[in-house]
Amino acid sequence: MRAWNVTGTTIESLQPVEVPEPAPGPAEVLVRIAAAALNYRDLAVLRGTYGSRTGAPYVPLSDGAGTVGTVGSAVRRVRPGDRVVLNYARDWIAGEPTEEALRPRLGMPLDGTLQEAMVLPEHAVVPLPDALPLEDAAVLPVAGTAAWHALFDFGRLQPGEQVVVQGTGGVSMLALQLATAARARVLVTTRSAAKAALAREHGADTVVVAGGPSWDAAVLEWTAGKGADLLLDVVGGDLSASLRATRFGGRVALIGFLASAEARFDLRFAIQRRLDLRGVSVGPRSSLEALVRAVAALRLRPFVSRTFSFEEAPAAFRALASGEHSGKLLIRF
Amino acid sequence: MRAWNVTGTTIESLQPVEVPEPAPGPAEVLVRIAAAALNYRDLAVLRGTYGSRTGAPYVPLSDGAGTVGTVGSAVRRVRPGDRVVLNYARDWIAGEPTEEALRPRLGMPLDGTLQEAMVLPEHAVVPLPDALPLEDAAVLPVAGTAAWHALFDFGRLQPGEQVVVQGTGGVSMLALQLATAARARVLVTTRSAAKAALAREHGADTVVVAGGPSWDAAVLEWTAGKGADLLLDVVGGDLSASLRATRFGGRVALIGFLASAEARFDLRFAIQRRLDLRGVSVGPRSSLEALVRAVAALRLRPFVSRTFSFEEAPAAFRALASGEHSGKLLIRF
Amino acid sequence: MRAWNVTGTTIESLQPVEVPEPAPGPAEVLVRIAAAALNYRDLAVLRGTYGSRTGAPYVPLSDGAGTVGTVGSAVRRVRPGDRVVLNYARDWIAGEPTEEALRPRLGMPLDGTLQEAMVLPEHAVVPLPDALPLEDAAVLPVAGTAAWHALFDFGRLQPGEQVVVQGTGGVSMLALQLATAARARVLVTTRSAAKAALAREHGADTVVVAGGPSWDAAVLEWTAGKGADLLLDVVGGDLSASLRATRFGGRVALIGFLASAEARFDLRFAIQRRLDLRGVSVGPRSSLEALVRAVAALRLRPFVSRTFSFEEAPAAFRALASGEHSGKLLIRF
Amino acid sequence: MRAWNVTGTTIESLQPVEVPEPAPGPAEVLVRIAAAALNYRDLAVLRGTYGSRTGAPYVPLSDGAGTVGTVGSAVRRVRPGDRVVLNYARDWIAGEPTEEALRPRLGMPLDGTLQEAMVLPEHAVVPLPDALPLEDAAVLPVAGTAAWHALFDFGRLQPGEQVVVQGTGGVSMLALQLATAARARVLVTTRSAAKAALAREHGADTVVVAGGPSWDAAVLEWTAGKGADLLLDVVGGDLSASLRATRFGGRVALIGFLASAEARFDLRFAIQRRLDLRGVSVGPRSSLEALVRAVAALRLRPFVSRTFSFEEAPAAFRALASGEHSGKLLIRF
Repeated sequence: MRAWNVTGTTIESLQPVEVPEPAPGPAEVLVRIAAAALNYRDLAVLRGTYGSRTGAPYVPLSDGAGTVGTVGSAVRRVRPGDRVVLNYARDWIAGEPTEEALRPRLGMPLDGTLQEAMVLPEHAVVPLPDALPLEDAAVLPVAGTAAWHALFDFGRLQPGEQVVVQGTGGVSMLALQLATAARARVLVTTRSAAKAALAREHGADTVVVAGGPSWDAAVLEWTAGKGADLLLDVVGGDLSASLRATRFGGRVALIGFLASAEARFDLRFAIQRRLDLRGVSVGPRSSLEALVRAVAALRLRPFVSRTFSFEEAPAAFRALASGEHSGKLLIRF
Repeated sequence: MRAWNVTGTTIESLQPVEVPEPAPGPAEVLVRIAAAALNYRDLAVLRGTYGSRTGAPYVPLSDGAGTVGTVGSAVRRVRPGDRVVLNYARDWIAGEPTEEALRPRLGMPLDGTLQEAMVLPEHAVVPLPDALPLEDAAVLPVAGTAAWHALFDFGRLQPGEQVVVQGTGGVSMLALQLATAARARVLVTTRSAAKAALAREHGADTVVVAGGPSWDAAVLEWTAGKGADLLLDVVGGDLSASLRATRFGGRVALIGFLASAEARFDLRFAIQRRLDLRGVSVGPRSSLEALVRAVAALRLRPFVSRTFSFEEAPAAFRALASGEHSGKLLIRF
Repeated sequence: MRAWNVTGTTIESLQPVEVPEPAPGPAEVLVRIAAAALNYRDLAVLRGTYGSRTGAPYVPLSDGAGTVGTVGSAVRRVRPGDRVVLNYARDWIAGEPTEEALRPRLGMPLDGTLQEAMVLPEHAVVPLPDALPLEDAAVLPVAGTAAWHALFDFGRLQPGEQVVVQGTGGVSMLALQLATAARARVLVTTRSAAKAALAREHGADTVVVAGGPSWDAAVLEWTAGKGADLLLDVVGGDLSASLRATRFGGRVALIGFLASAEARFDLRFAIQRRLDLRGVSVGPRSSLEALVRAVAALRLRPFVSRTFSFEEAPAAFRALASGEHSGKLLIRF
Repeated sequence: MRAWNVTGTTIESLQPVEVPEPAPGPAEVLVRIAAAALNYRDLAVLRGTYGSRTGAPYVPLSDGAGTVGTVGSAVRRVRPGDRVVLNYARDWIAGEPTEEALRPRLGMPLDGTLQEAMVLPEHAVVPLPDALPLEDAAVLPVAGTAAWHALFDFGRLQPGEQVVVQGTGGVSMLALQLATAARARVLVTTRSAAKAALAREHGADTVVVAGGPSWDAAVLEWTAGKGADLLLDVVGGDLSASLRATRFGGRVALIGFLASAEARFDLRFAIQRRLDLRGVSVGPRSSLEALVRAVAALRLRPFVSRTFSFEEAPAAFRALASGEHSGKLLIRF
């Protein structure tokens, strides 16, 4: 079977290889990958800026979905032929995050999804309802569970509430689509008119083109001076505007750091307004299951801006590095 | 009756005045204050650094307890002679913080407790159980409900959990006493050997004299490398050590800013470890009621480092300004 | 001004009276009622089966909305001309239920909304957004906040979850409309084909005509054998089928007792499946505010099956007593 | 090695057998059991009244602790020689209960702890701190996690709150000890003066000898008419007194059914007072970990009323069947 290996710290170091198909142990399943998706994390891992690494070569990518092939003798959760999506934090089933549960993740330190087949413990796959295509499911594990966790677990979003989402990246577009489907009202900040149109198309109640320093004033106007109930911050750096744009007792999900990883804000403001800032990342399998169910029930189609073939994997990485895309980048096998 | 008025922006501007005793309206009660307590807020209000102000002269102080005198005709919650503590956020009864509920507060913009009697709506007083002396109750509204909220509402503290408390100030000493009583284990950081001894006396499991840059390493050792379940940050500024000292999925209560009000930390760390940072301040009356009940049931004596007479109010403010004290400063009428 | 008085324990004892218009005190507002709505509670209060009563005559009805007339000198929350809905549990602003907060309720022991004008504390009214007509708002306080609380506070409903709603009464229809709007999937049980059609029209994913003993089997089939995430029980009596229809760790909102007020179920089942049964009734003003915001944002029109004029109040009570209606019964002034 | 097998449906059917020692697979550990404990469940399983069964013969008992012997090649969580307690719901690590997570349980359908050694997945054992003796740990998995869950997860117990615990059985004594340690106040109901003395000895604030029908009146007196914050019901049947003894918005943990498994109560009361009734049973491994940490930190010694040797297992079952004991029955190997 074919796979891609990262052999260095550049996109050029991606190498196609031919490897033998693995065989599942008693409690394991073989999954034939049908589609995989990219996240900024994949680029950071490749470039070696993601913290501790295992040595190259390794198979990259954290997101993927496919069809169950052979299964081990003790497997009960799925059968050959079942369509499944893979749980990125492989062994995190449910409950609070722990270091132990979050260590084994696809795409680093475990091998990732950019290979035609892979073996996983049966507990690491989530069966898909008929209504959910494999290509849609493939983009959900990393960005989708982060958006879900920010909106519905941390955010406890209720219909009619007002949410601010920054930008049109992978997490942001899924958050926009999910929050809109759940009948919250969403304001999207963005830097380009094209992306503003895209956000509107996907349900944004209001879009603020964030060229100036005062997008928070626009949020206050949108909320009658009160501030948003929930804000998803993917920009990082100076959080002052994000905090000003959030209501008394409101919630700020800290998700990204496109501008800077060094957060800064005025403690007096956060204390006076009783703000809640939470570091948000992927969730456990139970979140992925809830998300899969919701996406299917809502007939929601996650926004994919570009699709690549398996052979075009390096081009997909280059598109990711350019930062020009909105939503997700998909690789169809 | 006697009162103190703030007439400028210095401690020297405190003036004793003689004013007529106020009379309660139908749903109001007159409370004869027996003791009042000081908080850093009182100094910031006096100096005009606390944000928007009403004009001087005004009666300072936010904390107080006393005995009900005359009551209005519609009053049902208390009777003349009842011993009560006053709710600092006067109209915040219960539930989530809102701007509306938090606006009217004792000591600014409303007149405060440094007067022999004051009139309040009946909903703003909490009756005291016999076991709780007025002088102990007087220190609870501001620092006590902040400590309670950080530990038991935000913190959801369970027995056996490990908590880090910074310093031996008003909130910190009450948090130490309450968390210890609830059988959590508490590590206190402090800068002096004398304060270390005080913390140990009041139940600290471990004390770290925080001279060096690595008190977080001591916390990690104390928690077998895992980090504390809950950390109460009163220092502010660079939060890196506080975040490193907190476990995966742990909670950081942002309470003070002794070092700096400009918070800074690495977003990657907060996101990777799913940390929860919450601005914590006083709670609603329901928190004060729960606190009063707990302090009485636990026979806990809030630590007061110095007591002043009504006439010595300026000296109490000077002691507060010096920053040398631990626990609370009390004025006994 | 005109009002209706209950003077006995039968619908026939309803008497039209002419009374002087009341005047608001300093923190009070006069509201000119535009519409009122009926609840089963009103009938139970009238018949004297609702527990302790104040003596007749009294003004009945708990639900109402109208326009602010004169306001007291200290009023800040609203102005003359503002459109408002009234908070049934008049003094319950936010937070956990307490006996004290729940005692003063409109329609008993306080006078109710079946009068052309009434005086209320300013904290007891909720301003309406332009998008929400007074007649729609008038049906929300009792049935609406109960449905909201069951679904979104107790129920923590997330998009894609599966909810069972019994019948097409006032709470049930609002719950169906709200849950559907929030993109949960709703199964409605009912006893008639006409009501089944009504439920489908208002968004029900599935309707089970509950003639037989096995509606719970239909729920299990609908949920692939797993059981509903949340069930709203308005029937009471033998809860066995409701419990069987609820998933492991699921939630059952106990709302009504149309069949019997004597609940019965097998403890082994509730324990083994870790079920959560919660007595649900109206919520605080904060719930009414959230509901008002959601209904306006979602452009949701609460279902009213019949509308009466002020003069037809006895006919409205008779329609209520017949139990034939779905959704709400409205009185337009 | 030695084991006991259940071969029928009577205590007399317990048979000592000699079986070969099992060997752990790659991710498994062998645990040499040092102590096991009994629960009513064990009797119900033996008698066939616990619902679906696997066929006899099987090894009974759900609770146990011991020392790790050989470990599989992939094991990381523990080493040979580590002292561990076993997680009864073997595969439930954390998070909400699901049917899948709760199916494999020790003592049925899996073999239990009444054998000198057993093999378990490494994820099913919890390492013990030095301060916690194996015999104390052995009684924790079933009764301890149920008590913990009722008090601290469902109950969210805070210091100073008032809890009612029924009787002095296994869950009740542990709940009394834990709640007292966490500085809540506990009222215990019991039927005998000897058990009343035992409850007082272990920290009960008040004991009501429940001969008459009015123990709930005693609770109301103890709580100044308000009702308990939390009540642990192990008696079942008519829950009216339990509901009357619980405060507005209070919580009732449904744990046992000593009187009857057919729960009955008045819905109007539960609805009016917004009571929360939750079926409570064992928790996930994360609860057992929290409990182990708390028991060690608090130096709490779980109350064991009788200890038996491995050979005396049938006598232990007979003691359990008699229902005369308080706290736990232990078998020391």
